[in-house]
Amino acid sequence: MITLEAARRVVSAAEEKAREIGQPMDIAVLDGGRNLKSFARMDNAWLGSIEIAIDKAYTSTSFEMSTEDLVSQAQPGQPLFGINTTNNSRVVIFAGGIPIQRDGQVVGAVGVSDGTPDQDQQVAEAGVAAF
Amino acid sequence: MITLEAARRVVSAAEEKAREIGQPMDIAVLDGGRNLKSFARMDNAWLGSIEIAIDKAYTSTSFEMSTEDLVSQAQPGQPLFGINTTNNSRVVIFAGGIPIQRDGQVVGAVGVSDGTPDQDQQVAEAGVAAF
Amino acid sequence: MITLEAARRVVSAAEEKAREIGQPMDIAVLDGGRNLKSFARMDNAWLGSIEIAIDKAYTSTSFEMSTEDLVSQAQPGQPLFGINTTNNSRVVIFAGGIPIQRDGQVVGAVGVSDGTPDQDQQVAEAGVAAF
Amino acid sequence: MITLEAARRVVSAAEEKAREIGQPMDIAVLDGGRNLKSFARMDNAWLGSIEIAIDKAYTSTSFEMSTEDLVSQAQPGQPLFGINTTNNSRVVIFAGGIPIQRDGQVVGAVGVSDGTPDQDQQVAEAGVAAF
Repeated sequence: MITLEAARRVVSAAEEKAREIGQPMDIAVLDGGRNLKSFARMDNAWLGSIEIAIDKAYTSTSFEMSTEDLVSQAQPGQPLFGINTTNNSRVVIFAGGIPIQRDGQVVGAVGVSDGTPDQDQQVAEAGVAAF
Repeated sequence: MITLEAARRVVSAAEEKAREIGQPMDIAVLDGGRNLKSFARMDNAWLGSIEIAIDKAYTSTSFEMSTEDLVSQAQPGQPLFGINTTNNSRVVIFAGGIPIQRDGQVVGAVGVSDGTPDQDQQVAEAGVAAF
Repeated sequence: MITLEAARRVVSAAEEKAREIGQPMDIAVLDGGRNLKSFARMDNAWLGSIEIAIDKAYTSTSFEMSTEDLVSQAQPGQPLFGINTTNNSRVVIFAGGIPIQRDGQVVGAVGVSDGTPDQDQQVAEAGVAAF
Repeated sequence: MITLEAARRVVSAAEEKAREIGQPMDIAVLDGGRNLKSFARMDNAWLGSIEIAIDKAYTSTSFEMSTEDLVSQAQPGQPLFGINTTNNSRVVIFAGGIPIQRDGQVVGAVGVSDGTPDQDQQVAEAGVAAF
């Protein structure tokens, strides 16, 4: 369970970090069943990042890991090459999705998109830290 | 253009009305390009209403009318029978989606789902009124 | 949370009822997040019922009601006419899907398909009773 | 033809191996027509592996080979590069899917997902051996 109040705390903290680094972002929080709980597209953030933000959170809930951890494994010749076309092609293999945990259980995830992978990761981390 | 600040004002007013009538809701605001701007799933609101809320707003932006206005036209034998399977079946033909206008132009829409059509409509109206 | 052991108990009881009435069935159990937990296609059951069984359970989890309760509301002229084309057209509007509850909370659902609506409902009820 | 009884024998043997190596798995058996026959998601197995398990079996039935055999051929510059986006992107190109044969004919396949490719392969092999 992740409440709307908790999901919004995550989104707000991510937004604050995004403003701090001067990069508008699309930010999504999904619950542990991979269903959307809260979403915000900051002004001037990319349209193409709406689904990427949501699907990064989807990916992190699906595999209980950050999307950053998929980067190296999903390269050609690596064990999970091709994973991004599974699950109706909703698996994102670059940084910006991080699971949200309570007592060691994944209860949801945040997904952030529009900046560089480093920026997305940084903003997602700020979001998770506020949970 | 609809700012995140304005979109959230719409969501908040809708939420307040939903709490007032004691019915948790899924609430979405899309911009004039039919792209998601803000979303909230209130605690205990249906999972099935996530997409319905988003798609009611999608419908209202698509056809610049409330989804309530589609109800009679989409019945068997009526002029728009079958419209709900167009646009990748994202067209919703019951109440709860209302366009958001500025100076007579549709700049977005709100979509609300989980209650009766009357409740959804009432909550969506409260949202639009706050724009 | 619904364990695999509990999900299988539901499937087994549904199967037993299906054999009793002499009608092979497709039987699915989803968890509260609408994700598949257990599935069985009995020998000679329809291929077309694979997705219907899964999607009946999807529908019952999505709207926290039996699909039988959607039948009258989804008819032309009724409040939810058109709901079957929402959620990527995964909403099924005839009997055979029933929520599984624990302490008043929906923790999943069973979906059954291949017989008449009455048979599907009866088999689904036998499944839920075993939870 | 693969009976439900035989499909379950495959799933049970795979489960037993998964427990033995201490890795919860999603396990699917499809028939020779690529249609789902039996499925089990072990407790604590990834949600993202539901579809991957089913689609590994889909892939092995589709091309009458193990998904492991696709790995090298699907790399950049190799003959089947891009095959994972065919068939509505249901083709999985890492280990864990194995055809089930009777008298030299492919009558179905098992798909396993959630561990390393080696673990998935090992568990799938245990399943097939029980057929």
